[in-house]
Amino acid sequence: MPPLTRALAFAFVLLSPIGLVAKERNAVVIQADFGGAVMPGVVFAVDKTIPIFNVQPLIELYNIDAAARNLVYTAPVWPVGTVFISVVDPGVGTKRKSVVVKTKNGQFFVGPDNGSFGYVAQEFGVEAVREIDETVNRRPGTEWSHTFHGRDVYAYVAGKLAAGVITYEQVGPLLGTKVVELDLPKPVLKDGTVTGMIDSSRGHLGNTTCLIDRRTFDQLGLKEGDLAVVTIRRGQKVVWEETVPYARTFGDVPVGKNLMFINSSGFVAMAVNQGNFANTYNIDSGREWTLAVRKK
Amino acid sequence: MPPLTRALAFAFVLLSPIGLVAKERNAVVIQADFGGAVMPGVVFAVDKTIPIFNVQPLIELYNIDAAARNLVYTAPVWPVGTVFISVVDPGVGTKRKSVVVKTKNGQFFVGPDNGSFGYVAQEFGVEAVREIDETVNRRPGTEWSHTFHGRDVYAYVAGKLAAGVITYEQVGPLLGTKVVELDLPKPVLKDGTVTGMIDSSRGHLGNTTCLIDRRTFDQLGLKEGDLAVVTIRRGQKVVWEETVPYARTFGDVPVGKNLMFINSSGFVAMAVNQGNFANTYNIDSGREWTLAVRKK
Amino acid sequence: MPPLTRALAFAFVLLSPIGLVAKERNAVVIQADFGGAVMPGVVFAVDKTIPIFNVQPLIELYNIDAAARNLVYTAPVWPVGTVFISVVDPGVGTKRKSVVVKTKNGQFFVGPDNGSFGYVAQEFGVEAVREIDETVNRRPGTEWSHTFHGRDVYAYVAGKLAAGVITYEQVGPLLGTKVVELDLPKPVLKDGTVTGMIDSSRGHLGNTTCLIDRRTFDQLGLKEGDLAVVTIRRGQKVVWEETVPYARTFGDVPVGKNLMFINSSGFVAMAVNQGNFANTYNIDSGREWTLAVRKK
Repeated sequence: MPPLTRALAFAFVLLSPIGLVAKERNAVVIQADFGGAVMPGVVFAVDKTIPIFNVQPLIELYNIDAAARNLVYTAPVWPVGTVFISVVDPGVGTKRKSVVVKTKNGQFFVGPDNGSFGYVAQEFGVEAVREIDETVNRRPGTEWSHTFHGRDVYAYVAGKLAAGVITYEQVGPLLGTKVVELDLPKPVLKDGTVTGMIDSSRGHLGNTTCLIDRRTFDQLGLKEGDLAVVTIRRGQKVVWEETVPYARTFGDVPVGKNLMFINSSGFVAMAVNQGNFANTYNIDSGREWTLAVRKK
Repeated sequence: MPPLTRALAFAFVLLSPIGLVAKERNAVVIQADFGGAVMPGVVFAVDKTIPIFNVQPLIELYNIDAAARNLVYTAPVWPVGTVFISVVDPGVGTKRKSVVVKTKNGQFFVGPDNGSFGYVAQEFGVEAVREIDETVNRRPGTEWSHTFHGRDVYAYVAGKLAAGVITYEQVGPLLGTKVVELDLPKPVLKDGTVTGMIDSSRGHLGNTTCLIDRRTFDQLGLKEGDLAVVTIRRGQKVVWEETVPYARTFGDVPVGKNLMFINSSGFVAMAVNQGNFANTYNIDSGREWTLAVRKK
Repeated sequence: MPPLTRALAFAFVLLSPIGLVAKERNAVVIQADFGGAVMPGVVFAVDKTIPIFNVQPLIELYNIDAAARNLVYTAPVWPVGTVFISVVDPGVGTKRKSVVVKTKNGQFFVGPDNGSFGYVAQEFGVEAVREIDETVNRRPGTEWSHTFHGRDVYAYVAGKLAAGVITYEQVGPLLGTKVVELDLPKPVLKDGTVTGMIDSSRGHLGNTTCLIDRRTFDQLGLKEGDLAVVTIRRGQKVVWEETVPYARTFGDVPVGKNLMFINSSGFVAMAVNQGNFANTYNIDSGREWTLAVRKK
């Protein structure tokens, strides 16, 4: 070996133990319906150079729909190679499968296959679903524990995957390309009215959002500043109906006034400027709740 | 090129793609009145080596004063070059300006110029205010979005600035050295009594704090252990008045007893040892609330 | 010096200012009963390469037992060398000692010695307790401040210790190997019934847990699926008694049904599947609350 090569090789040996040379730097992003610093610790113990991020505030307890929605809201801004852990897992330790989903945009999603991955599968497409092989990818010494897969399995496999300790293939056996779906209704456009399920309300901001994407909405031909008639129903019953401005943003109407807008995910939403729409009008979310909008 | 130089140049080329050579390591610190892992993701996607920190718990919704106060409380311990994002932005998408403030202590503050930067401007002095040029510093593909500047503009420009992808000058046009001010009253010392506006109460600890800094307070000549007469007014009306010890710390009085102290920001504050002063005596904050203190 | 050596030395000089060569990468993990980004900032300012983690949600205000319990729950997954800060400190600025505990598993615990370190001392064993010498390990310029040791002392010394700026010996004088203990009762096994103090209830999940470790419990000879008689007492009074399944995990019983299980810390616990045991049956925790379990 010529001296220069040897010198460089020596430098590499010195640097490599702390993981700084020629390694991908993939983040692990953790969302769960509980907090603490246990899952980050497991990831960190696998490799001290992994950037680790926690979603705060927590996902609502046992709310799988909220987990799914937050994942698809969060993932698009993160780079290829990011590993997401999602642990809203009321069925922990039962028959639901523990998986790592690889989506077609090159990201990974680790957790129970209970619907949490329904939205990202739909949005990004699924390249593969692999079941985590716990005989090799469970944290050693945790065999007695059945109620904290987040610590014992998910954080551990996520850390190994992010750090390149294992390849995606080494996660475990291929299950195919299907995840448990949320099976949510698509928006319906008929006679100049578009109707969609209300998927979120009563959140931090109190905005009511529905499954009408901006491309479908655009077919109504409304322009910012136009008036829209919005009807919210629970089953067949009209709970709320009003003519409101289709606004660009909250501040386009006076404080305390209602507006319809396209939210930052690109879906139709209702708000009160600096207020709480859901609580003011007592609007919940779920399959029996719909929002219909038409041009005034 | 001589061999040694070539060897080093080669080493640099190898190392530089992962951003480890000769680069400042500036943190991005994010505070907002909403949570999630979207803004951190945008910063991380700009440069995977930026240290990113979130302020938790969240700033109270729409409370610009609280945002301003938390910024000036937090920033002093962070190094020169730190980039702070502050997104309490009830006027998102309206005429308020999106800016990056450079303060005279060498830190950067990114967000809406709506009063959020009033305290840091006063405390550190303003070197320059630049308006963010969204034609070059908006996240590509987000032109349709008008309600989440935190993601589409602030996190993106903060990441680029922290990583050195852009210089401060490349943020956008210079606006001058003025930010929107909070215009808060200074403490008034008269006839042995100092009076200041109550700027915070009902917070996590329930301490009531006011805008009497420790240097002004020191002019009263009280020593730790002395008794002080504290009068709290709403407008002209006396809401609470009591003689209390000027204590060094909470535990200098029995559990459940009142004390006056200099808080960790260096301002006069009231507390109940292991209790909640604000809730116990129903004390709020704001321009009509004042606290007056004199030596017993 | 031969050219190669000189080249490498030069490379090291270039790299070392940003702390990337041959340095341990020890994390600082922060738990407290208040939030914000002040303590992380102090640690970061000591050394920009320290990985910093915050425990969220916060520890309950003034609840030293909860701080102790969360530490021992969190620490085991973190590597040797990790530095934990725990600031639940109702006695801040009084006579309680500020210490750094080194446990026999090679981790460090920084904070007030008020019982917060009782569980980790018991679990890992104490190698040494040193009192923080504030004449050298207090953040410069904070001598006037008496109510925020987390910022002024603990975060500062934790950062210096994690980064190797000081050795453990340089923390301050050796106090011995004793910390303030929680002095909690051990489980009692008698006539086929094991009884332990209820140490936690009313938490995020509403599970009721007690100080019966799984090894003691195993002596009852119950197998998963067996029935157990569980009696909860406040003092002598029976508050709740029922025959419940000893389940592997929540989902082994129908939603809304009670179960006994070994929790993820390895202790006996009660839960309602997807419900809140503590609130449903009004069960608190503390020295007067006990749980007794026997085989049906």
